[in-house]
Amino acid sequence: MKTIADIAALCASLPAGDAAAEAVVRARQATLTKPPGSLGRLEDLVAWLATWQRRAMPRLDRVEILVLAGNHGVTAQGVSPYPASVTAQMVGNFARGGAAINQLAGVAGAVLRVIPLELDRPTEDFTRAPAMSEAEFLQAVATGCEAVSPEADLLCLGEMGIGNTTPAAAIAAALFGGDGARWAGRGTGIDDAGLARKRAAIDAALVLHAGARGDPLHVARALGGRELAAILGATLAARQHGIPVLLDGFVCTAAAAPLARLAPGALDHTQLAHLSAEAGHRALAAELGLDPLLAFGMRLGEASAAALAVPLLRAAVACHTGMATFAEAAVDDRA
Amino acid sequence: MKTIADIAALCASLPAGDAAAEAVVRARQATLTKPPGSLGRLEDLVAWLATWQRRAMPRLDRVEILVLAGNHGVTAQGVSPYPASVTAQMVGNFARGGAAINQLAGVAGAVLRVIPLELDRPTEDFTRAPAMSEAEFLQAVATGCEAVSPEADLLCLGEMGIGNTTPAAAIAAALFGGDGARWAGRGTGIDDAGLARKRAAIDAALVLHAGARGDPLHVARALGGRELAAILGATLAARQHGIPVLLDGFVCTAAAAPLARLAPGALDHTQLAHLSAEAGHRALAAELGLDPLLAFGMRLGEASAAALAVPLLRAAVACHTGMATFAEAAVDDRA
Repeated sequence: MKTIADIAALCASLPAGDAAAEAVVRARQATLTKPPGSLGRLEDLVAWLATWQRRAMPRLDRVEILVLAGNHGVTAQGVSPYPASVTAQMVGNFARGGAAINQLAGVAGAVLRVIPLELDRPTEDFTRAPAMSEAEFLQAVATGCEAVSPEADLLCLGEMGIGNTTPAAAIAAALFGGDGARWAGRGTGIDDAGLARKRAAIDAALVLHAGARGDPLHVARALGGRELAAILGATLAARQHGIPVLLDGFVCTAAAAPLARLAPGALDHTQLAHLSAEAGHRALAAELGLDPLLAFGMRLGEASAAALAVPLLRAAVACHTGMATFAEAAVDDRA
Repeated sequence: MKTIADIAALCASLPAGDAAAEAVVRARQATLTKPPGSLGRLEDLVAWLATWQRRAMPRLDRVEILVLAGNHGVTAQGVSPYPASVTAQMVGNFARGGAAINQLAGVAGAVLRVIPLELDRPTEDFTRAPAMSEAEFLQAVATGCEAVSPEADLLCLGEMGIGNTTPAAAIAAALFGGDGARWAGRGTGIDDAGLARKRAAIDAALVLHAGARGDPLHVARALGGRELAAILGATLAARQHGIPVLLDGFVCTAAAAPLARLAPGALDHTQLAHLSAEAGHRALAAELGLDPLLAFGMRLGEASAAALAVPLLRAAVACHTGMATFAEAAVDDRA
């Protein structure tokens, strides 16, 4: 991808899901020793995995978690209660195994990879200039694309970046309308004055970059951040590789949202793991037609909620592959 | 417990939770490398486990799943699309490892125990007589009590019993008001005519056993079933042993509900794992003040949803015990 137009072109010809694999799953589900449909969403999740893995018997042998990390010039506007230094410190914490995502990756049986994106070179403060140049944006997207292991069976995406609920809210506003008051929340826990600054920063950016409104990738470049661009790239690469994706929370959803604005169905290979406590997430999920698997009031990022949801998918697959049929178990089916 | 009055007496003096253990948990949570409260319900679940395990550092080394199975005379009223023979056949399927709960217990890392309660001797058809005599009811409660391993760290409760959403709905109606139309759902998938028969059976039973209304244990005996009585007993025994409980679905919730009517707070050591697709479950959970962990549209029973929720608790405990503090990780805390 040498230009932004190349990304748009990719979105215009995304691979479709494997309807035949889904049909095989549905047919097997009807034979398993349970009333039809009684495993509810677990059954739908198996069908979804089969559709996008292109396998009639989906598997979760290799689950990968990618955490993309970036720093943000807009923190100069006082939009986070934490100093920007925390981004790199938390990347160190990830490396030493001390963060929430390390523990959650263990429970999920997943491989965790953390990719810092030029943490010592924050994006521009987007109240004054586009967050990234076209070259910087393309580089971040490419980093996300290349970070995806083609052999993964499931990809969990998440992020770390002090201040990044501000670009996430700005992207949501530019793509779906409304202003800072609609989309900005308290992030890691900003106070009232900080929330007012955050809304003002978003509103200023929406005015400054009004010309980007009709072009989702221009929105991602001008109002986003490197880790958000990398999530966009990884989501796209996963579609190409036939890897279903679990999106984490508000920032992750906003990062992937430009794809859905470019091409309806571009996020069909994704599930939203969790409805965040962050104020704008419910509206953003609704705009994208994403129905979260969990609603645990989390607001941490780090792919924490995506990792939390992995055992739910393992449970779905275990039932599908391990259950006996009515015939095998000699259980009477309904009359 | 030699009489029903003994059960009521137990409920009048239930052990309280360990507030000191909860306080230690909350204090540690404030030091971990995450914004305060950002793990949402995961933090509350650790506090709940600590409160009822009476341990400042809760653990889930031994998770047990108990599936209680019973048969129901009210199936003579045509309230289920499946023949009553399926209860014993499914118990066989559990023993051979072919059911959903076998796969889910594996993912949960839990020990599964299945306890059939006199499957060849169904309860009475409660449209004509009390479902159980006092002796039969006490025996079933005692079986549930004795089935609980005192050393378990978490107990998942579930059931198998063709027709048992009918007694569950009848119990809910007798405890919380309303009739068959309010509480009866499609269970394993009954058609419109069957649903009408189910509602009529419940309404007839409510008239026949109107005298039971003010006495929750009388309700459980006259309108319940053996596996429901055993769940009631197991819930009570878990409280005595300091074991937190995950309740499964509609039947399991209705089975435990008489305890809450006997004593406010009697279900404080329980969490509801899942909001069932069964019609009456949302109202029943609301009456009991239970906030389900999951809403996956399941309606299988077998402790399937309780087992599905276990990894969520494991994730909560893993974060609490494994995360670094701000001081340990040398991460800057908020200003």
